[in-house]
Amino acid sequence: MNKTKNYMLSLKWEEDNLLILDQTKLPEKTEYIMLKTVKDVWEAIFKLKVRGAPAIGIAAAYGLYISIRDSKTKDFKEFYKELKANSDYLASSRPTAVNLFWALKRMEKRAQESKDKSMEEIKRDLLMEAHAIRDEDEAMCKAIGENLLTLLKDGMTILTHCNAGGLATARYGTALAPIFLAKDKGWNIKVFADETRPLLQGARLTTWELLQYGVDVTLICDNMAAHVMSKGWIDAVITGCDRVAANGDAANKIGTYGLAVLAKAHNIPFYIAAPSSTIDIDTADGNGIVIEERSEDEVSCGFGRRTAPEGVKVYNPAFDVTPNHLITAIVTEKGVLRPPYDTAIEKLISKKE
Amino acid sequence: MNKTKNYMLSLKWEEDNLLILDQTKLPEKTEYIMLKTVKDVWEAIFKLKVRGAPAIGIAAAYGLYISIRDSKTKDFKEFYKELKANSDYLASSRPTAVNLFWALKRMEKRAQESKDKSMEEIKRDLLMEAHAIRDEDEAMCKAIGENLLTLLKDGMTILTHCNAGGLATARYGTALAPIFLAKDKGWNIKVFADETRPLLQGARLTTWELLQYGVDVTLICDNMAAHVMSKGWIDAVITGCDRVAANGDAANKIGTYGLAVLAKAHNIPFYIAAPSSTIDIDTADGNGIVIEERSEDEVSCGFGRRTAPEGVKVYNPAFDVTPNHLITAIVTEKGVLRPPYDTAIEKLISKKE
Repeated sequence: MNKTKNYMLSLKWEEDNLLILDQTKLPEKTEYIMLKTVKDVWEAIFKLKVRGAPAIGIAAAYGLYISIRDSKTKDFKEFYKELKANSDYLASSRPTAVNLFWALKRMEKRAQESKDKSMEEIKRDLLMEAHAIRDEDEAMCKAIGENLLTLLKDGMTILTHCNAGGLATARYGTALAPIFLAKDKGWNIKVFADETRPLLQGARLTTWELLQYGVDVTLICDNMAAHVMSKGWIDAVITGCDRVAANGDAANKIGTYGLAVLAKAHNIPFYIAAPSSTIDIDTADGNGIVIEERSEDEVSCGFGRRTAPEGVKVYNPAFDVTPNHLITAIVTEKGVLRPPYDTAIEKLISKKE
Repeated sequence: MNKTKNYMLSLKWEEDNLLILDQTKLPEKTEYIMLKTVKDVWEAIFKLKVRGAPAIGIAAAYGLYISIRDSKTKDFKEFYKELKANSDYLASSRPTAVNLFWALKRMEKRAQESKDKSMEEIKRDLLMEAHAIRDEDEAMCKAIGENLLTLLKDGMTILTHCNAGGLATARYGTALAPIFLAKDKGWNIKVFADETRPLLQGARLTTWELLQYGVDVTLICDNMAAHVMSKGWIDAVITGCDRVAANGDAANKIGTYGLAVLAKAHNIPFYIAAPSSTIDIDTADGNGIVIEERSEDEVSCGFGRRTAPEGVKVYNPAFDVTPNHLITAIVTEKGVLRPPYDTAIEKLISKKE
């Protein structure tokens, strides 16, 4: 092996402080910063130094513990008031991040459950809860990776889009999890990474974390995927996902749908890595998923300079929806779902409840 | 009409000098520069201030005239020696541009044909030849546009890729020609323009020239085309092309093949605008077309800053090949070719000879 496996965790808990890998500095600089106060954590989330729904949730949970670890109050009611104020403050750092609210609510609930304990015990329970949120995320990602691995073989080449990697989670990521696990097994897996316009998460983050781990990764522009597939170089496409409807239609980063059409045309299996928490049974199908449109500047002023004329109209959807018939398998931490997805999802959900 | 039709010619001949629109300044600045010497013309081609095979050929033809218009020699042999030296000099400005050599050879031939005339007449003939090269290119583009227009209707929305517009030719361009002609007829044609990574010709040039002419144009990233098609917003895809094989397989800017697959999947007609000079009957099919690979920096260091980690592998093919079965029609200045392309092309070529 000519490169060391160097796994860069997105977050680390060291000596009672939170260390995060500053993702705004990537890929040029690899820099961990220490977050010592709740304000440090708020800023790190607000400034996208930590990104990805699970990683944000974990950072916020640790941030909430940090916010009260030095609290002097002896009264639970007072303590909880302080905790709640800090929780609301942290929640304001990324007002659209559902996972952030979920993690903070879970921490608040844990405090309530421990209310009859001593202050020291409550604080320790809160730290344990933050650790649990992190550990559960890592275990879930690993399970998704192991399930995806059952669909792959040594020597395969994978195409991926955007960044559904360890940087967005506690470890492993979702779509990238099987690639790290395959590397650990000594498999020779190659990866093509779409750069993923407009924000270039593939170029900046996916190639970076795979390179760190010694994975053979090749960067391409999004419009090169079809050509690479036609060469017979791709054995499977794996992407992450933001939301799966009850019928298996899946919303993910813009460009995913096109890749799925291209994969079908080239007889390449198309896998979606989806934590079961992203399955939304209240949405019947993809038509119910509203597509967020983002700022025109992301497209017309990328790379720090204007690349399109002033006044040009820009359409910048953040996501697209891949219809279920283009998806070979939806891979969750609980197992591999195969079509027909409506029954597979129903079965998975009923098992959960 | 809320915008004036403002057609910006890529080249103009004014008061015995060549004016070119400096394409390196687009889209931020619209600046014509006057080329008074053969060195000015050489530099403009070398520095990509004028680009696109036909436009380069036209600029070189005028440049060759400029190089000898003040020649004092009275002897044709001496004159031709001077002309040939300048022609070789101009040919060195873009050593891979076939059209450049073709235009210079045509000018040399014209000088030879006029060798028994007076020096003044020979010089006038050379200027006339440069004008003819320009005028023939404009007429050819217009004919392609008119032929494409027979496939379109008022109210349609076109998706295009890269820049196959007037900036690359004397006027009109190839893929964009029907859009300018439709605008002149008062039709309401809308356009979606792919930005076209890595060099962003769609964002920088196509949107610019359509905006100038008051065409309703919307810029998207390459990976958004599939989503836009799935919305039912696109009635036809039209792209230019670099080379067509004898069986109709067509090489064009990277990303074209993927668009053709997507168009087929959405039942959208896919048209290639191809001057008959791009048809290469000596190449049996797309397998015979070598794909140029360009510098990694175009992908990893776009626009002045690094967007991918140092040391990452990059695959940067400049072109791809669209197989004939994905092409609804190949539109030349001589007419609209329909499948089966082998016989349609054979018929077109035999007519020519």
